[in-house]
Amino acid sequence: MKHTISVLVENRFGVLARVSGLFSGRGFNIDSLCVGETDDPTVSRMTIVVRGDERVLEQIIKQLRKLIDVIKVSNLTKEEHVERELVLIKVSAMNKKRAEIMEIVNIFRAKIIDVDHQIVTIEMTGDEDKISALIELMKPFGIKELVRTGRIAISRGGR
Amino acid sequence: MKHTISVLVENRFGVLARVSGLFSGRGFNIDSLCVGETDDPTVSRMTIVVRGDERVLEQIIKQLRKLIDVIKVSNLTKEEHVERELVLIKVSAMNKKRAEIMEIVNIFRAKIIDVDHQIVTIEMTGDEDKISALIELMKPFGIKELVRTGRIAISRGGR
Repeated sequence: MKHTISVLVENRFGVLARVSGLFSGRGFNIDSLCVGETDDPTVSRMTIVVRGDERVLEQIIKQLRKLIDVIKVSNLTKEEHVERELVLIKVSAMNKKRAEIMEIVNIFRAKIIDVDHQIVTIEMTGDEDKISALIELMKPFGIKELVRTGRIAISRGGR
Repeated sequence: MKHTISVLVENRFGVLARVSGLFSGRGFNIDSLCVGETDDPTVSRMTIVVRGDERVLEQIIKQLRKLIDVIKVSNLTKEEHVERELVLIKVSAMNKKRAEIMEIVNIFRAKIIDVDHQIVTIEMTGDEDKISALIELMKPFGIKELVRTGRIAISRGGR
């Protein structure tokens, strides 16, 4: 099962290495991780998606809470939340393929953000299923390059 | 100056801790970092934004290339590229504030992805300037929660 963990941290040297080291030290592979500043530039938020045993995860969360630069840890899997991810896909688009690609892009409400004679670069946000579906549809055209942010998540409602 | 580094890695335990450790060990703070799978699930791509001296950065890049799980390192700052980031912002929206927020959301071509009596959650993609502008405009309403993916980037054109 995949778990989505949100960690608020002081924006300091080495905090990322310490947090990710806690997971890898326990044999957890990190599926995706995003870290970026919040509206307070001294504080960053990490969103980490991991697979693994829930009991071990609870131990890791306890250890995270003891780290000096960690402000707050939430296991969003246990709350109602919204998940989103951003992907950029560069696809080869010779000759008549471009119209076919455009059609799929429109259906997915994605955007074309770069184009030349040979390629089209697509931007899309969505949950993991939507992004996987777009990637599958683009594979036959030839994916030249693909970058995903990994998942970010926010709790629902006003609590 | 901010540098955007793209690192293709084998999707293995501990690679994230090793890569981020190389930066913090040299006193580089990581502004943002995203890591997610590519179209090949055994391979992940990390996009790292750092500030610091360019000469030291070149040394770090050389060391990154020597790491066993690192496939390719590109300094995208030196190539033409497109940058994007995703942000989720939960804003308090009591009474008549919602219409005001909606107006800003429309101007920015952002999206409302969650709403209740007290809050509105906004999703937007863009470059750093666009995202900072939206955050500034939302501050007066009261930002309850903010999550950013950090920057991802892809080279322009068909090379």
